[in-house]
Amino acid sequence: MPLDLTADVVALTEALVDIESVSRNEQQLADDIEAALSVIGHLGVTRIGNSLVARTDLGHGERVVIAGHIDTVPVHDNLPCRNDGTLLHGLGTCDMKGGVAVALALAAGVPQPNRDITYVFYEGEEIDAVYNGLRLISEERPDLLEADFAILMEPSDAQVEAGCQGTVRVEVRTYGERAHVARSWKGVNAIHRAGEVLRRLEAYDARRPVIDGLEYHEGLNAVLISGGVATNVLPDEAVVTVNHRFAPDRSEAEALDFVRDFFDGFDVTVVDSAPGALPGLDVPAAKAFVDMVGGEPKPKFGWTDVARFSALGVPAVNYGPGDPSLAHKQEEHVPIEQIVRCEQRLRSWLGAS
Amino acid sequence: MPLDLTADVVALTEALVDIESVSRNEQQLADDIEAALSVIGHLGVTRIGNSLVARTDLGHGERVVIAGHIDTVPVHDNLPCRNDGTLLHGLGTCDMKGGVAVALALAAGVPQPNRDITYVFYEGEEIDAVYNGLRLISEERPDLLEADFAILMEPSDAQVEAGCQGTVRVEVRTYGERAHVARSWKGVNAIHRAGEVLRRLEAYDARRPVIDGLEYHEGLNAVLISGGVATNVLPDEAVVTVNHRFAPDRSEAEALDFVRDFFDGFDVTVVDSAPGALPGLDVPAAKAFVDMVGGEPKPKFGWTDVARFSALGVPAVNYGPGDPSLAHKQEEHVPIEQIVRCEQRLRSWLGAS
Repeated sequence: MPLDLTADVVALTEALVDIESVSRNEQQLADDIEAALSVIGHLGVTRIGNSLVARTDLGHGERVVIAGHIDTVPVHDNLPCRNDGTLLHGLGTCDMKGGVAVALALAAGVPQPNRDITYVFYEGEEIDAVYNGLRLISEERPDLLEADFAILMEPSDAQVEAGCQGTVRVEVRTYGERAHVARSWKGVNAIHRAGEVLRRLEAYDARRPVIDGLEYHEGLNAVLISGGVATNVLPDEAVVTVNHRFAPDRSEAEALDFVRDFFDGFDVTVVDSAPGALPGLDVPAAKAFVDMVGGEPKPKFGWTDVARFSALGVPAVNYGPGDPSLAHKQEEHVPIEQIVRCEQRLRSWLGAS
Repeated sequence: MPLDLTADVVALTEALVDIESVSRNEQQLADDIEAALSVIGHLGVTRIGNSLVARTDLGHGERVVIAGHIDTVPVHDNLPCRNDGTLLHGLGTCDMKGGVAVALALAAGVPQPNRDITYVFYEGEEIDAVYNGLRLISEERPDLLEADFAILMEPSDAQVEAGCQGTVRVEVRTYGERAHVARSWKGVNAIHRAGEVLRRLEAYDARRPVIDGLEYHEGLNAVLISGGVATNVLPDEAVVTVNHRFAPDRSEAEALDFVRDFFDGFDVTVVDSAPGALPGLDVPAAKAFVDMVGGEPKPKFGWTDVARFSALGVPAVNYGPGDPSLAHKQEEHVPIEQIVRCEQRLRSWLGAS
């Protein structure tokens, strides 16, 4: 059954949830979205892989991106969608088919927006960055993403969450010398040496910088630890995997320097890193958006694709229905009222009734 | 080809090594040993599983056990035996077919010992205690192991190593509370809490008690550590596996109390434990044996089956050819001179030429 973008936005959310689209299995949903967008006269549609870009071209002096990923984490006995009258329950309701439904409803229902809009529906957000549709579009057709401002419809409790913190993951290794544990004084215990790594982490004092009026909150945490050879062997290596979340007033390089200094004297290997994104709330389009949405904008602690827009020179915020702390949980759900409110606020910001 | 127990003890060692007998695959070697012992008139032979007990019954007032296990750790591209003129190389040369060859040569070659002897050749020493042949004999026929003194032919560089240290293994657990690592202040990091466990271990001061003139050396070591859920989740549990080696002046219960006190405030689970064995060098048979062997007896740090004899009320020492630190190594080997020396010393201690 084709998607009906003119249906009620809640019914549209239910329909999207019931088309399973776990990462790497987005083709059916991408096909359905493409079919529905292609018949809308005021949009120019481009498909790249299983991602879709749909643009108005009304000659406005301002262009805004409204984007959402269409993939979900794996099914966990939480399909199909269930509507209890207040909440929609099921995989992807919160992260983030509620937000995708809002964007699709606007794409179909606002033919004459007061700003030009670039709608982006993309694949591969929940897995390794190599599959990320937004990244693939930015590499193949960066022109399609040019804009003054971007709204990412990630769940944020229908409030503006601005910017995002960056992330660095490192492995801190300690070394020793093996020996039979019955004669341990003949070796050096690498696990004991990791005690100092943990001691420093426990004494860590988090920086909480205020940027554009938003207070960020950094973090430095051991997330994994491993070591040991066998129960009768003195261990010669231990590895502490440490994650650092850093506020967007620091670059990736500065964050890495901080981590290396912090573990001075230890062997530190960088495994993964991604920059943060400044909130950018001083941009006129962002100001207008925040005023329209109302409420106090909040800082975004988790990393999202707003950082990709930021890297492209496009200020971006998160704004979508659903509690972000429910993302990836079996019991994820979204308040129906938030879906409806997000659609109404955006519709009115775009000058439609 | 049947085993020739009257052959040169070095040739006999080579023959034993070339009959592969990895734990749980001892049947062939047990059959061959049984066949060779059965034709010796002065011995009464009992088979229990793949273990053999062969006893003289000359009516002496003193009885001594001479014992060795016939199994090995897994093959590691180190068979057959290779004789370079000075060393025998190959799986089991050191641990402990050199010692088994000595015992078999005595069994066949000393028909009129000045003490009654119980020879024990047993299976399943290198694996879980449930398979240990000495344990199985002690349960089924404890009378067969009654003696005034026992010599375990474990590799000890052809010197007397007396007693053995006990061992306790525990898991020390720390707990926390999960949270997304981007909002880590909403949870509690269990891996950081393990820092205090490691700090105490690093500050541990080993007891070195002197018992019967031998200085033991205790140890308390983290041997394994693990913790963590995923790289974006604050970990709610960490486990440090700790091994304690304790001198034989302490019981298992006392050692456990020490460990629990040491980790006061943490969740401690006992995984495994085994008592030590007092050196027992004040027993007349032991004294005479030490005098005959010559050299200074040493303490045994590693756990061996002497502790089983000790638990049966039989003082026991380790005495056999081979460097104990080569046991379980691919390159294990035994000096030919030590095999010959051990056989000569024991032969003369038993009153034979």
